[in-house]
Amino acid sequence: MNENEFGSLYRLLAKNHLKELKDELSDMAYPDIAEFIMDLDDDKIAVKIFRILPKDISADVFSYLEPDSQTVIVQSITDSEIERLMDDLYVDDAVDFLEEVPANIVRRVLANTDKETREIINRFLKYPENSAGSVMTIEMVELHDRLTVAEAIKNIRRTGVDKETIYTCYVIDDKRHLVGTLPLRRLLLNEEDTHLTEIMSDDEQLIFVRTMDDQEEVAAIAKKYDLLSVPVVDKEDRLVGIITIDDIVDIIDEEATEDFEKMASLTPSEDEYLKTGVFSLAKNRIGWLLVLMIASTFTGQIIEGFENQLATIAGLTACIPMLMGTGGNSGNQVSTLIIRGLALGEVKIKDYFKVLWKEVRVSLMVGITLAVANFGRMLLVRLITGSDTTNSVILVVSLSVAAVVVVSKTIGCTLPIVAKLLKLDPALMAGPLITTLVDTISLVIYFALTKALIPM
Amino acid sequence: MNENEFGSLYRLLAKNHLKELKDELSDMAYPDIAEFIMDLDDDKIAVKIFRILPKDISADVFSYLEPDSQTVIVQSITDSEIERLMDDLYVDDAVDFLEEVPANIVRRVLANTDKETREIINRFLKYPENSAGSVMTIEMVELHDRLTVAEAIKNIRRTGVDKETIYTCYVIDDKRHLVGTLPLRRLLLNEEDTHLTEIMSDDEQLIFVRTMDDQEEVAAIAKKYDLLSVPVVDKEDRLVGIITIDDIVDIIDEEATEDFEKMASLTPSEDEYLKTGVFSLAKNRIGWLLVLMIASTFTGQIIEGFENQLATIAGLTACIPMLMGTGGNSGNQVSTLIIRGLALGEVKIKDYFKVLWKEVRVSLMVGITLAVANFGRMLLVRLITGSDTTNSVILVVSLSVAAVVVVSKTIGCTLPIVAKLLKLDPALMAGPLITTLVDTISLVIYFALTKALIPM
Repeated sequence: MNENEFGSLYRLLAKNHLKELKDELSDMAYPDIAEFIMDLDDDKIAVKIFRILPKDISADVFSYLEPDSQTVIVQSITDSEIERLMDDLYVDDAVDFLEEVPANIVRRVLANTDKETREIINRFLKYPENSAGSVMTIEMVELHDRLTVAEAIKNIRRTGVDKETIYTCYVIDDKRHLVGTLPLRRLLLNEEDTHLTEIMSDDEQLIFVRTMDDQEEVAAIAKKYDLLSVPVVDKEDRLVGIITIDDIVDIIDEEATEDFEKMASLTPSEDEYLKTGVFSLAKNRIGWLLVLMIASTFTGQIIEGFENQLATIAGLTACIPMLMGTGGNSGNQVSTLIIRGLALGEVKIKDYFKVLWKEVRVSLMVGITLAVANFGRMLLVRLITGSDTTNSVILVVSLSVAAVVVVSKTIGCTLPIVAKLLKLDPALMAGPLITTLVDTISLVIYFALTKALIPM
Repeated sequence: MNENEFGSLYRLLAKNHLKELKDELSDMAYPDIAEFIMDLDDDKIAVKIFRILPKDISADVFSYLEPDSQTVIVQSITDSEIERLMDDLYVDDAVDFLEEVPANIVRRVLANTDKETREIINRFLKYPENSAGSVMTIEMVELHDRLTVAEAIKNIRRTGVDKETIYTCYVIDDKRHLVGTLPLRRLLLNEEDTHLTEIMSDDEQLIFVRTMDDQEEVAAIAKKYDLLSVPVVDKEDRLVGIITIDDIVDIIDEEATEDFEKMASLTPSEDEYLKTGVFSLAKNRIGWLLVLMIASTFTGQIIEGFENQLATIAGLTACIPMLMGTGGNSGNQVSTLIIRGLALGEVKIKDYFKVLWKEVRVSLMVGITLAVANFGRMLLVRLITGSDTTNSVILVVSLSVAAVVVVSKTIGCTLPIVAKLLKLDPALMAGPLITTLVDTISLVIYFALTKALIPM
């Protein structure tokens, strides 16, 4: 549904036809209702609309609201409404919400939550950020390993309405150990008197994560095995929760965004751009810019040491930006490919020499092509502008281009893999860091070739 | 399963205990079996292992193999084995496979496929790359709108085994028009004599895409509505296929990779790095590097026009890399945020002035901070190295830093949104393109401030 299509809703709202508005909203998908509520600029009206929602869908809609809208609503509803809301929310959505809102709201919400749920939520809030425990939910279908297919289906029919997903069921023993997984599909397509233990996936096929595993690992496992939900077990192998595919999709987006940010020398932030304050945005950017500015002191020093030659040989200074740019760009090309390959599991540490050998050949091809093109470009520019750049300067610059490409590609493929080996994030090795390193090396190569080939 | 855990499989293979090997493999998950087959370096052994797989899982395993392993296997098996394989593969997996393998293999495979499947596959192969039609599958549960819950469940039990997913069923009328969607869960939790039309989602909640829609749109819809599969309809609103969440996850990864590549001035490629030839890799990189090298002719010209001043005023040349680097980095920071925000739908074109106003404030904060830091840095460097950089040069450089940050952030937030407005890909506006533009502008600002503030 497009935002422009809220027209009929606004018409009903303006005319105060709340009954019809409620009917119209009840027919809409939850994310669209949430979008409409967030589109209302007036907090009071937003709360009013939230309150007219049918009771059985208000928690679902609530889970799709942004934290600031959630805060506004919780501030305006009664304690008993909060109690009901917390009762209807899935635990993972409740935890997501409580992690984002101000502390006074958290206190009021928890005070109006029944003891059992409160204890669960408090346990969830303690899991480290980005761990499997922090993103899991507890509303899964657990089936005892003594059941038959018919008993299992009966159990699901009775309890399924409160579960976040019923499409993968988890089989547990007396001690709540996870002993098997069972897709609902297999359950339905088998005879009623079959025992679950005969048809469940166990042993080698039993795929699970632990509460403290990183969410990135959870996403990788779900992708590899095409799972709709991933079971989470504690240290004693007891089933404690599941992570569903919709949350896994969010994790995938989140991790990609984090890599984009790191590669653009930003301090990663999980907040949406438009919802982040000016001060936080500035803070996330200044750190790396400062580091990189200070690092450029080295390039400055190298240039100062060569200032006499630069001042006397025409055309030498003018090529510095081109050389540094080419080095930075060609280094970034390969580091981006390797970082993404590592993130998607397509490139592994053990592939390093394969990668290096590939890059040596690629960089020679690219380097020589660019060197030839540069030679032609500089001849042409001299012809047009009538500048007094000598042939030997043109030759030195072209040779430098080739050398810079080879060196920058070698560095670009090495740094991310070294980072991975050192258990650092490869994404930190891209963009600006490589650029700064390559800048320095490009200048050294350039000046060395100048000294060697141009007589002073 | 970790690759190191293939040890017991290799032991059985080395001892030629094929019966035990088959049993062991049968207990494993399909992606792991595929990984084991691809881990075997010898083509003959790979084919041998593929052939001992139980008949009911070999097509599933085949769909997880990389195209080159698929080619090897199809080249070595008999026509009747191919026929059986094509019969067992889901249409989307068959199409994926045929899109990647050499033409002679495609011909042989299609010659051994029954007429009906062959026609379907040929139709699928004609959909444009990255369209919904090209990634959908036809194995979905279609239920007639006259059925009751009990009849629908009976239908699913009978036909479900051949469907790619049964968890969302699609309700159609006599003319095969999509009239509603029905999660299996809702089906199971309702009374047996309920009519499907009473419980299905219809009207506003009916979410679908068309065959020619871009796969990026499909992924956005699946994410927004947390769907496990997205129905695809043709021009006449008839249901022709579905796209399942595992393929949507692949699309999300693919689109992010494409953006990473564009932002690193690479020609996007869908092939994995290690599987791409040296020549293709070089080709994907040379284009943009050439364009950017030629663009740097402008920066070169600007510097040449200023060569006399650079030669006479100490310290002026040495600061060029720092200024250009700071401009490029700070421009990239904001363009990355905006590009990612646009890709995830968090930033929209209409937000431009909000974004601009934010960036003006952020860039002033960042610019002034960096200018002050640079002033300190240059004073310190002069103190340590005893260089003859004058106070006025330090002042000009620091003022330039602040101006460059403000200008580069303004450009960085504007270009991606302009690209989106012009229906170009915002990702093309990042990285090198912004860097080159900002490089030029940085120099102009720097030299203008020098002329204005330093008497010659």
